[in-house]
Parts: sequence; structure tokens; C-alpha cells
Amino acid sequence: MAQEKKLVEAITSMEDDFAQWYTDVVKKAELIDYSSVRGCMILRPNGYAIWENIQKQLDAKFKETGVENVYMPMFIPESLLQKEKDHVEGFAPEVAWVTYGGGQELQERLCVRPTSETLFCDLYSNIVQSYRDLPKLYNQWCSVVRWEKTTRPFLRSMEFLWQEGHTAHATAEEAEERTKQMLNLYADFCEEVLAIPMIKGRKTDKEKFAGAEATYTIEALMHDGKALQSGTSHNFGDGFAKAFGIQYTDKDNQLKYVHQTSWGMSTRIIGAIIMVHGDNSGLVLPPRVAPTQVMVIPIAQHKEGVLDKAYELRDRLSVGFRVKVDDTDKSPGWKFSEQEMRGIPVRIEIGPKDIEANQAVVVRRDTREKIVVSLDELETKVGEILDTMQKEMLERARAHRDAHTSVATNYDEFKDAVANKPGFVKAMWCGEEACELKIKEDTTATSRCMPFEQEVLSDKCVCCGKQAKTMVYWGKAY
Amino acid sequence: MAQEKKLVEAITSMEDDFAQWYTDVVKKAELIDYSSVRGCMILRPNGYAIWENIQKQLDAKFKETGVENVYMPMFIPESLLQKEKDHVEGFAPEVAWVTYGGGQELQERLCVRPTSETLFCDLYSNIVQSYRDLPKLYNQWCSVVRWEKTTRPFLRSMEFLWQEGHTAHATAEEAEERTKQMLNLYADFCEEVLAIPMIKGRKTDKEKFAGAEATYTIEALMHDGKALQSGTSHNFGDGFAKAFGIQYTDKDNQLKYVHQTSWGMSTRIIGAIIMVHGDNSGLVLPPRVAPTQVMVIPIAQHKEGVLDKAYELRDRLSVGFRVKVDDTDKSPGWKFSEQEMRGIPVRIEIGPKDIEANQAVVVRRDTREKIVVSLDELETKVGEILDTMQKEMLERARAHRDAHTSVATNYDEFKDAVANKPGFVKAMWCGEEACELKIKEDTTATSRCMPFEQEVLSDKCVCCGKQAKTMVYWGKAY
Repeated sequence: MAQEKKLVEAITSMEDDFAQWYTDVVKKAELIDYSSVRGCMILRPNGYAIWENIQKQLDAKFKETGVENVYMPMFIPESLLQKEKDHVEGFAPEVAWVTYGGGQELQERLCVRPTSETLFCDLYSNIVQSYRDLPKLYNQWCSVVRWEKTTRPFLRSMEFLWQEGHTAHATAEEAEERTKQMLNLYADFCEEVLAIPMIKGRKTDKEKFAGAEATYTIEALMHDGKALQSGTSHNFGDGFAKAFGIQYTDKDNQLKYVHQTSWGMSTRIIGAIIMVHGDNSGLVLPPRVAPTQVMVIPIAQHKEGVLDKAYELRDRLSVGFRVKVDDTDKSPGWKFSEQEMRGIPVRIEIGPKDIEANQAVVVRRDTREKIVVSLDELETKVGEILDTMQKEMLERARAHRDAHTSVATNYDEFKDAVANKPGFVKAMWCGEEACELKIKEDTTATSRCMPFEQEVLSDKCVCCGKQAKTMVYWGKAY
Repeated sequence: MAQEKKLVEAITSMEDDFAQWYTDVVKKAELIDYSSVRGCMILRPNGYAIWENIQKQLDAKFKETGVENVYMPMFIPESLLQKEKDHVEGFAPEVAWVTYGGGQELQERLCVRPTSETLFCDLYSNIVQSYRDLPKLYNQWCSVVRWEKTTRPFLRSMEFLWQEGHTAHATAEEAEERTKQMLNLYADFCEEVLAIPMIKGRKTDKEKFAGAEATYTIEALMHDGKALQSGTSHNFGDGFAKAFGIQYTDKDNQLKYVHQTSWGMSTRIIGAIIMVHGDNSGLVLPPRVAPTQVMVIPIAQHKEGVLDKAYELRDRLSVGFRVKVDDTDKSPGWKFSEQEMRGIPVRIEIGPKDIEANQAVVVRRDTREKIVVSLDELETKVGEILDTMQKEMLERARAHRDAHTSVATNYDEFKDAVANKPGFVKAMWCGEEACELKIKEDTTATSRCMPFEQEVLSDKCVCCGKQAKTMVYWGKAY
């Protein structure tokens, strides 16, 4: 038992220190490793395989809506970055600059892309001429660099993987429609595949993207009551088009500016999976995104027929599921701990007695429920168990979020909620940035979004008491 | 007809100017666009979709051999790059340096990865302790940067996409086996999927990778008779392991160095597809890698029922093939030209008379053969035509290569072959670098590889006349 203890002991309990628990899990589940480059993480096979599953499913959803993938250069000449004023102000402080190449100092320095609006605009200004060329619905999967002072695996790192979609449309209406369409696509993906419920809404002007007319966001609540911005979709109007001269000749023969959007989701979402579903034994992965869905663990594998039976079950299940056998020489208890740490949704225990009884024990990672299943109906039962688990993980996450969402109708209630009730606080707001700043200074909470699903909690701003304009979700955020 | 002319006129014929033909094709088929960043290309949807198909199929082959994907940082601290002497000498002249980040000058400059041996070695030195941790079979899909003076789309650009596999093994034998396994995997992939026959062999010491003990390569012959190095696999022995201190405790309790390999294939291979299969009407894509395999082109689409029938054929074929309908308001002739320029393997022409006769005309892109097919057996026939086309494209490329491979047994023959017979020249070599250098200076041809399939053409070196050691494929190369 010494071995098992070692693995489990190494994790701090989330009640004692949530941040340390998080760090322990990402390391012990071998999702990441730190590198020699400050603030850059290495995505190890267990971590990268989650990203591959996200990418595959999200990419298929994008393509269903007509999106096409491209690849743009990773460097942006300084002059190009500077073309849109708000945008450069937002990003210039956190970029990395290449100043030497091929042994020579460069005439113009190049920034390593923090995001690629400027490059897409430059391309669109070259290839869009007529209304026939619209819409352009391009996306790329790549890494971007933002020089962060403090970093945390998945949540904030100097380089991270993401996708960035950039579209150009003939009309403002079409751009607005695409912006919302992609936000809904993200929210549906997170609920259906990652079992994470999202609040959909609009960012305040203070929190919106540098250069955007409107930024829409999906916000999730982590287990510790902090919010995580999980994906954003921006409507640029024709601001970038004017800065970059992206014009097309319309059917009426008039020269018009295009309307643009961009939208992105990153490896940050893996942090959300960990912090929404994980427990004190490690990761808990929703079946639909788990790289391995089923781990077959032979019991007394030295006994005749046990390993063969384990392989047979794997081969049978491989038709419909991602399944592996742990046939290493570790003890079953150690294997259980590893499977739990890695968050593999179900394990199947199969030993001599099970074989004799033509059965196996299926154990759910989330509830630890043990289900004895006849081998004659293994595939059906495993499928049902995974479906149920996927569904219940979403329900539990939603119940947790709802239980950690307070309502505040005056500033005392608000401050009390932020201080003592970890989670979202719903409260009315007058629309003035002054109140947002005061709230942040007084409580460290920020406006997460103005949700599409509005409620009227009061007619007064929770901060200044003046006429309220909108309900806002507030919270401490990652 | 003016429209059709315009599209076709824009391509230089390959007999007149092969380099210009190539540039015309990559632009007119909308594979790439030039960017504002010198030497960096934009992969447009038609080009990126080819890379996606390569990636998907190659990645599946890797995973069948146990390879796992990871993601490493794009930056390498200068001190890390310098750990292996030959390696840094090979790459230092062509790297890009980041010297500023987050508004501050960096204490240590970071190079943008030209390749990631040093990062993988750094990781392996941390995570490999015991023989139980071996082998490590990691791969990553990413972009790399090499500061090239002259660039050409796909063939040589400052930033390009590739995969780089990096493995660590307990024994020298296992590393050598993996090196050859991956080379064979590349060669099989190129023949089966890209219809490009490869010469497999070993690079001379002069041409091998910086830091490798042995470099194996696959070499293809382009339509103009020039060679293209299409993929390489390196055996590092324990050189990097010693430089980075990657040791493990073996079963005998002894501390030993690991043996390593690396292997890569890049977007360069798209250049090979173009230059092996293309013709004066544009691209010709092998069916197995073509993003769109079948384009349905309605004839007289304004007539009742034509478009509906075109959509019906698309829907029927979508079950087994990647198929689209060109329902734009362009003329059929213009659509034919576009389909040919983009290299879509077959088009299906369907008009009122075809519908009446319950048939369609299937046209092969490579031979332009028109095949009248009954709609009752459309799926079967299209499948057969694509299979035949895939097979015949490989056969034609092999016949072209064989017809452009000369044998030289003395230096006059050799110089004559390089000057007057575009293609590979097979000739014996003494093994001395002096002869390689002289040959390059006299003829501009370089040693492509020492093929695994050796022949004894003579017992004398084709250059110096001394005792020959090995047969070499020589050629002018991209």
C-alpha cells in the first residue's frame, strides 16, 4: 500500500489550498511540465491529447458553419501592428520583439503575434474586391505570445495554443449575427462536450477587446467560486476595415467597407475542465473529451486467462470507445490511483472471480459508483454509464454554479457577497465605468458580463444608487 | 469565352519557364498568398486543406506506432541552444532572436525554434529516470523559423509548418530501428497517399543533420528533373544525451545514456505534389490527399431540375467522398478551368440531356478522359475512377523518374548527364568529401543519398577514380 499512498499524498486537498491543489493536479496527472523558458509550459501527452479532442470537435463545428482554416505568419511587422490605434495600445505592452535574424539587426522589428487581427486585415485588403468575395470565414489554429508577469499552467502563460477566427462580411447585421453565432457555438460546445455550463453575455466597454465595438463572452464558475472567461467573440464593426482599407464593390456598384468579427478559444479551457470537475483524487474528465474513456484493469493478472480476458474486453470496447488496458507490473491499487489521478471516466476491474461469473466491475470516476455488469452486455452498459456520467457532470456543475450565485440589491449586500459567498454576484449597474472601478477597488470583483438573459433585480445601481441600466454578473476572476 | 481564356492565360507553360509555372500555380490555385512579412507565406484555405489531409493521415500512422503528441515552447534560451556543439553551429546562423519582451530588454535572448532537439532533450533529462520510462516517442506539429535569404512558396520559407518527432530509447539498436521505421513510414505515406515514389537512403556526412550520427532521407524527382529532399530521419546516438545528461537506471542497476532519434516532414512536401503531378492547366491532386475529390458541375443550371439533380448527386457521393457542387453563376467552361487549376481529381458534368439519359459525364483531371456513367452505378464508378487515378499517378511519376535517371561510370559521362539529362545520376563514390565538393563546384549537383538499394556500377569513384565504396544518387536539388 506504500505506493498508493505516495501518489495520493502528493496532492494537496482543494479545501486546504485550491491553488496548490490545481498545481498538484496538472503536474501529477502529467498534463504539463515546466520548461527552461520562463512562463512557457510544455504540454505533455496527457494534456495535449485533451487539446486534440477539443480541437477536433470544435473544428468540425466551425466547418459546419462554413469556416475554412488558414495559416498566417507568426510575425507582425511593427508598422502593421500600429495601423489600428486602440488595438496597438491594448497589445503593445505585452508583446515579444524579434530584433535580429540571420545574424543581422532587422530594419523593422517584428512582434511575435499576440493575436492576428492585423495580418488578417492585411490579407483581406488584398483579396476582397467584390461582394462576390464575401463573406470570408477564416480561422487558424496556432500559438500566440503575451508577455505575462505572473503565469499559471493553462490559465495564463506566455505562449498558449488557441484558435482565432476572423471573418469579413458585407453588412453590419451579418457581422453581428456571426459574432453571436460563434458565441453560441462555444457555449454549446462547452456544455455538450466539456459539461461546463456557461453564462453568455456582453462585456462592458472597460472589459472589451482592444479595437472591438462589442465583445461577447462565455463565463464559467470554477469550484472555488472564481469566474473564468472561457471564450470571446468580438464584433469590430468597420473600424479595422477603415484602418486597413478593406473595401468591396457592392451589387449597387458602390465602394463599401466590410464589417468584421473575431472569436477565440484557447488551452485556458483545459484549466476550466480541471477546476470545474476535479476532486481530491485528481482530474475528472467528461467522457466526450477524455483521451482515454475506459481503462481496463486486470486483477491478479498473473493468473491464467486474466490478461487475455482484459485484452478481449479492450478489443470489444475499442469499436465504440477510447479504451486501454493497464497491463504494467504495478499493483491494482496503484493502477486505480493513477486512473483516478488522470481522470479517466470509467475503469473496468476484471479478475478470476469476475471471469468465472461472466461479469466485470465498472467504476465511475465521478461518483465512484461500482456497477457489476454482465460481460454479455458490456458495450451497451459502458455506453450508458458514460452517457449518464456526461449528463450528470453537467447537472452537478450547473447546480454548483446556481448554489454559488448571489443576488445583491445594495452595496452592503454586494460587499458581503463578494467577501463571504464565493461565486457570481448578480447586481444592477448604472453603466458608468466609475462604478466598475470603485467595485473593483473595494472588492477586487470585476464585471464578468451583462448577460443576454436579463433580470430586473432593482431599479438602482448597486454601487452609486442611480438609475440602473442593466444587470451584471460580477465576480473574482482568474 | 473571354473569362476562360483569362484564367488559363495567366499560367506560364512549364516547358517555357518551370519556376514561373510553379509560382503561377501556387497563386492561381489560391494555395498561398504573400504576406507583409518578408519570406513568410500565408497558407490560404486551398493550401491549408492539403496540409490538414497530410497531417491527419500521417498523424494516424504515427500513432499506430505508439507515438504521442506534445507541444513545446516556441522559444529556446540561447544557453540551451548552445549545449550541443555541432547542433548550434548548424543552426545559429539562421535563427531569429527575441531580445525584448513586455517592454523590457531580456537578460538572455531567446531564439524562435528552428527545430526543437534542445527542448526535447531538456524535457527528457527531467522525466527519464528508469528503463521503465523508455522509450519516449514524442512528436509535435508546429511551425519553425529559419532565416532564409531567398525563399520560394512551400520549398523554402522563413517560417514553415512541420512535424518533428523526438524519441529516446534504451539501446542504440532500438534507436536505429526507430530511425529506419520512420523513414519507411514517410516513404510509404508518400507513395500511397501522395503518389510520389521515393528513393530511400542515407545522407553523406557532409549533408547530414547538425548533431546527428546518421541522417536518412527520402528523395523525390520533380517534373523538371530536380531532386527534392522530402523527409528526413536522424539517429543521434548518445551525443545529445551526453550533452544534456539524459541518463536512466537500467535493469542491471547501471546508469546509462539514452539513444535518440528525430524525424520530420514539412509543408515542403506540398511543393513536391505540385511539381511531380501538375500540368499546364494547373494542379493535379492525388485523390487521397485532395481536399475536394469530386466537383459536380451543372450544365445549363437555369433549366428546371438540373441544380436539384446536382445536389442529389453530391448528397449521394458525400457518403464516401469529399464532394462539392459548383453552383455559382459562372459559365461551365469557367468552372471547368477552375476545377482543373485547383487540381480536383474528377468533375462530374450533369445537364438536361444527361438527366434524361440517366447518366453523367465523369472527367478525370490527370488524363482528361471522359467517362459516361449510369447514375445507377455512380458511387461505384466514381470510386473506381479515383482508385485508378491514384494508382496511375504513382505509376506515371515512377516512370518519369526512371526515365530521368542516368548512370555515369566516368567523370565525362557524369558531367554530360548533369548538364544534358535533367534527373538523377547514379554513380560510384570513394567516400571522400573532396570529391563531393569538386562535383558540386564543377556541376552544381549534390549527393542526394547513398540508397539502401545499392548497385555496383563500377569499382571506381566517378570523380577521382580511386576505389569506390558506395553508389550515390546525385542531382541538382531544390
